[in-house]
Amino acid sequence: MSARIADYGVRVGRLKPGELDKITDVPGVTVGHATIADARHRTGVTVILPCEDNVFLRKMTAAGFVLNGFGKTQGLVQVGELGTLETPIALTNTLNVGLVSDALASYTVRRCERDGAQALSVNPVVGECNDARLNAIADRPVREKHVLAAIQSASRDFAEGCVGAGAGTVCHGLKGGIGSASRLLPLGGKTYTLGVLVQSNHGTLEELTVRGRRVGEEILRARRKRAGEPPCDQGSIMIVLATDLPLDSRQLGRVLRRCTAGLARCGSYFGHGSGDVMIGFTTENRVPHNATEAVLTRRVLAEPLLELPFRAAADATEEAVLNSLVAAQETVAPDGTVYESLAKYL
Amino acid sequence: MSARIADYGVRVGRLKPGELDKITDVPGVTVGHATIADARHRTGVTVILPCEDNVFLRKMTAAGFVLNGFGKTQGLVQVGELGTLETPIALTNTLNVGLVSDALASYTVRRCERDGAQALSVNPVVGECNDARLNAIADRPVREKHVLAAIQSASRDFAEGCVGAGAGTVCHGLKGGIGSASRLLPLGGKTYTLGVLVQSNHGTLEELTVRGRRVGEEILRARRKRAGEPPCDQGSIMIVLATDLPLDSRQLGRVLRRCTAGLARCGSYFGHGSGDVMIGFTTENRVPHNATEAVLTRRVLAEPLLELPFRAAADATEEAVLNSLVAAQETVAPDGTVYESLAKYL
Amino acid sequence: MSARIADYGVRVGRLKPGELDKITDVPGVTVGHATIADARHRTGVTVILPCEDNVFLRKMTAAGFVLNGFGKTQGLVQVGELGTLETPIALTNTLNVGLVSDALASYTVRRCERDGAQALSVNPVVGECNDARLNAIADRPVREKHVLAAIQSASRDFAEGCVGAGAGTVCHGLKGGIGSASRLLPLGGKTYTLGVLVQSNHGTLEELTVRGRRVGEEILRARRKRAGEPPCDQGSIMIVLATDLPLDSRQLGRVLRRCTAGLARCGSYFGHGSGDVMIGFTTENRVPHNATEAVLTRRVLAEPLLELPFRAAADATEEAVLNSLVAAQETVAPDGTVYESLAKYL
Amino acid sequence: MSARIADYGVRVGRLKPGELDKITDVPGVTVGHATIADARHRTGVTVILPCEDNVFLRKMTAAGFVLNGFGKTQGLVQVGELGTLETPIALTNTLNVGLVSDALASYTVRRCERDGAQALSVNPVVGECNDARLNAIADRPVREKHVLAAIQSASRDFAEGCVGAGAGTVCHGLKGGIGSASRLLPLGGKTYTLGVLVQSNHGTLEELTVRGRRVGEEILRARRKRAGEPPCDQGSIMIVLATDLPLDSRQLGRVLRRCTAGLARCGSYFGHGSGDVMIGFTTENRVPHNATEAVLTRRVLAEPLLELPFRAAADATEEAVLNSLVAAQETVAPDGTVYESLAKYL
Repeated sequence: MSARIADYGVRVGRLKPGELDKITDVPGVTVGHATIADARHRTGVTVILPCEDNVFLRKMTAAGFVLNGFGKTQGLVQVGELGTLETPIALTNTLNVGLVSDALASYTVRRCERDGAQALSVNPVVGECNDARLNAIADRPVREKHVLAAIQSASRDFAEGCVGAGAGTVCHGLKGGIGSASRLLPLGGKTYTLGVLVQSNHGTLEELTVRGRRVGEEILRARRKRAGEPPCDQGSIMIVLATDLPLDSRQLGRVLRRCTAGLARCGSYFGHGSGDVMIGFTTENRVPHNATEAVLTRRVLAEPLLELPFRAAADATEEAVLNSLVAAQETVAPDGTVYESLAKYL
Repeated sequence: MSARIADYGVRVGRLKPGELDKITDVPGVTVGHATIADARHRTGVTVILPCEDNVFLRKMTAAGFVLNGFGKTQGLVQVGELGTLETPIALTNTLNVGLVSDALASYTVRRCERDGAQALSVNPVVGECNDARLNAIADRPVREKHVLAAIQSASRDFAEGCVGAGAGTVCHGLKGGIGSASRLLPLGGKTYTLGVLVQSNHGTLEELTVRGRRVGEEILRARRKRAGEPPCDQGSIMIVLATDLPLDSRQLGRVLRRCTAGLARCGSYFGHGSGDVMIGFTTENRVPHNATEAVLTRRVLAEPLLELPFRAAADATEEAVLNSLVAAQETVAPDGTVYESLAKYL
Repeated sequence: MSARIADYGVRVGRLKPGELDKITDVPGVTVGHATIADARHRTGVTVILPCEDNVFLRKMTAAGFVLNGFGKTQGLVQVGELGTLETPIALTNTLNVGLVSDALASYTVRRCERDGAQALSVNPVVGECNDARLNAIADRPVREKHVLAAIQSASRDFAEGCVGAGAGTVCHGLKGGIGSASRLLPLGGKTYTLGVLVQSNHGTLEELTVRGRRVGEEILRARRKRAGEPPCDQGSIMIVLATDLPLDSRQLGRVLRRCTAGLARCGSYFGHGSGDVMIGFTTENRVPHNATEAVLTRRVLAEPLLELPFRAAADATEEAVLNSLVAAQETVAPDGTVYESLAKYL
Repeated sequence: MSARIADYGVRVGRLKPGELDKITDVPGVTVGHATIADARHRTGVTVILPCEDNVFLRKMTAAGFVLNGFGKTQGLVQVGELGTLETPIALTNTLNVGLVSDALASYTVRRCERDGAQALSVNPVVGECNDARLNAIADRPVREKHVLAAIQSASRDFAEGCVGAGAGTVCHGLKGGIGSASRLLPLGGKTYTLGVLVQSNHGTLEELTVRGRRVGEEILRARRKRAGEPPCDQGSIMIVLATDLPLDSRQLGRVLRRCTAGLARCGSYFGHGSGDVMIGFTTENRVPHNATEAVLTRRVLAEPLLELPFRAAADATEEAVLNSLVAAQETVAPDGTVYESLAKYL
């Protein structure tokens, strides 16, 4: 496994992380990657599976939040209307969203057939970042097989950094990628878990901040002699949040908004070109595809207790971004620009 | 009691109305008016009390929906965020929203004191229509005493037409006002109730339609010789929806959107000057001001069963608008314009 | 050309239609279809091309509005954020949204290459209806070639009814499909055009209303002896609105909301399963992909003058739905259900 | 004048501030306060006047953004619909929003009478924070005279800290209040100004961060022996943003969202009880109350150039919060809690 920000003695907040300090600390959640890395391409697919069973038949209570909508994320309209997630969440590059969405629809139709059910209406949820700096994106190299491979490889202890949908991303002028973190939440005598996974592709080097230390400015000073500064804030960040807290869709939306605080602490000001999109679900309060009862029972956290999940969402997002930067390995772009790992500077 | 559209043999939809065919068929809901009618003024206050006990201490699950936000409705920001209603809903004229909001805050602070509780943060919900055609609105004649009088007079079998906040409103070129209707919903072996109250101040005469009959055009033809057509689509409609269905805030928001269908069937196309605002609550799933448990239980309707409440919301809104027009009495404006009652033409 | 509602003497509103009474009356707009009709399938693709030149390089000012988000429409997040449309709009069936989106991205990348530009970030806009009653939708038979064929066949005088994305849709219990209408708007000494195209797949037969005449109830009475009533409100309606009015994105959003009035007049109450989605653009105020000036000039209608476009949007939507029903031809579903044409009953 | 964060050598970002480093650097903008400070009360009113002339007759292009809607802000519904601001913006305490709104309506009606115009529909914009920790808020001591006094006293070089609506606020466990900052934006050969004013009443001491330095933790360590930690995240922040940039309402909304980054950098994670509300306007693109032309011309910044205003909004918000904390003076609450000034710790 690659390095993590905690290995450098950096802790974010005072809530404890889960066992792996990853989104997969939420029981049932797994993550898989398919990475495409060849002479012209660095891209891929990352999938977040919310459960082992068929999520279409027992949907997750879910929500989305878009701070900056300069992005192609698919599926949020229905998530917002019905408050449910009915497919795995897939992340990829900007120009392959359609194909990945198509593959998720195909996968869901077939999985339901296998489970003896018909899926005639499927809402695939797909996020994306633009990895054109490291990937010949116009080739659109992702295929259905990559989506299926990512799903098949899903596990609890997945890799971070330059993998899957993070293979070609750039974050705060350094090499970005996939990062994750989790927090444990003691509430009402139980311990819940909240986890975040990011595909980081946003921010400027100048503003990069690690727990208050303006590392970006340090790097810029160190680099002064070198030519070829990387370009300014472009790209996006996709944030997936999972939890087992008893929440409804409205509450999940409130939790998601707090992810933005974690982003800002790392130095993002949500630049124009940076689509900042959050998708969240809880494994509590699942919604049957075909309910047999007229009235269902939901368990929801008393509203003031959201204070702790809010804090956890901000902290886990901050740490997930830092993990993505530390886990990523130095990568040279076709134009010669070097995207370093944050690990080099800690 | 004044006439109702059903007295003219007009039925809207095939769902049965409740006992009174008013919003107060929802158990616990009462409505009160304070009417100001003098030489210069026709305005007032209408309040919808969601329960007999203190709604601040046990809040209602609630939602808002704004189709046209050209209006001054107050309180929807917090209703949207927390999904709760914590005061009665008051309706009044455009320029008295602030005062009525102040009076509701005052009322709530005092009522909580009486109940041994402190209300240090109160979110009054106030809607409005512009009754300037019949009311010297710039005088802003509503006082705190009117709000309190409306609250005190609240009852199940309230008046419709030219009363309270409907005293000075104009709807589809005729005299508008307060109207209401309700529907019974057999779902899962129980019978629920959904009721609507409108303050109607919108629409053009030309488009007025009663169950498909283009009454507005008929009236215009009949009037052809008369000068001084009333002006075009101005003003607003406020729609308050109450129910005892087990819904959460997201579902209530979905139900509210269907009120717009009822409006459109009467001939509204949601004109530029017409603020079209809906506020809804359910008496199920009440939310304690100070929850003692970490996790609360909510009961929610299985999503596909919303079909019936959707239909009911559209039907009750249509009938409530028609009731407001039938109950209203002919009124002559200071400029001599006569605003007739729809009853005259049925 | 197939029949239109006006052929039956039915006029909607008092604004005049354009020359063709179709969305293509808006200068520059063309529409193309690719229809798949075989033993198992009735589906396809319909594209609306907003201009002859490359819309990616000179984007349209645009907006979206979702009344019911139970649908898979893609692209609205970015349209909402940036207020622009940068691809043709494609309509298809629910399970082929991803593929059609992928094809639009591919088309745009290639078209830009031909125009000497790079498209590294493309936001395809794709709408959908669920045609599973007439189409073996799980086969997902639409291919990229269909998208390209629809684009290539685009013309001003396109067909309505059972074509393209309307091949397999069902509307108000009858055969639905593609319908269109337009209105001329005399404003400030000029005449503007506003056009609407619908893919109609919503509503119940019982509520079908043609200018106040409850045709649906008539049909149900006539059918009483027959078994096998078609199922209730399911599916969706996609509404595309085009205009050459000087509007900004916010104003376009206001205009779009008025389409819902046209839907409601035909009998929709925006059922649970009916995704009601509107996408609009204006050919005025185009936005260069690479602006060379810091400050651009926009022309916008004085806000109160929106009254006329509001009326036009409602009227054109109502007529477009009726046109879709009249143009559609009777179709027998695999399960034997007959979906008749409205034309039979007028 | 009281101290400012820059006096302590703390600079936020690399954009230059305007002459006063306050919101009033935007030409035409003035700010006034009325402060209530007696044995039981610390509260008041702060008004932001967008121009010297009558803003009702020539409205400002405006937008709102709500990150956390647990608050009673009034007026945002119409601002969102029409994209305009037609009154001064007033800030006050939670329970006096209605009264202040009423006073703004009254003021606007009278001012228009003086200017020979009729204001029959007025949308007052009022924000609030809950100052109950230092103010006997249930007394609701603000009167119309305070609103008028604040308006009359408006000037360019207004006071910060414990004044007006900031008299009784608490921020990050220290004494909060009014703070402001501005940034100059060189764009397209011109220099524009963007300014922010905050009423700060949010955050926890533990998270207080000054340019990366975790001052809050330092203070907590220093205080360790003392009993009576101040309570956790409660209250709200109101952020008013003014600019002379050529923007439309959609773009202003995008700029407003970036204020949240400034908040987060100071340590906010947008706690449950913290209503986080942003209201912004530009003095460019004014909108006549009665337009005489059908088509108006707007000047809008090319979208990618928003990068600089985004950065400025984040930076100015961060500095405005810090200014509010530095300018505020130590204040003892009725319960004995001491709310210190940040100045003591720098």
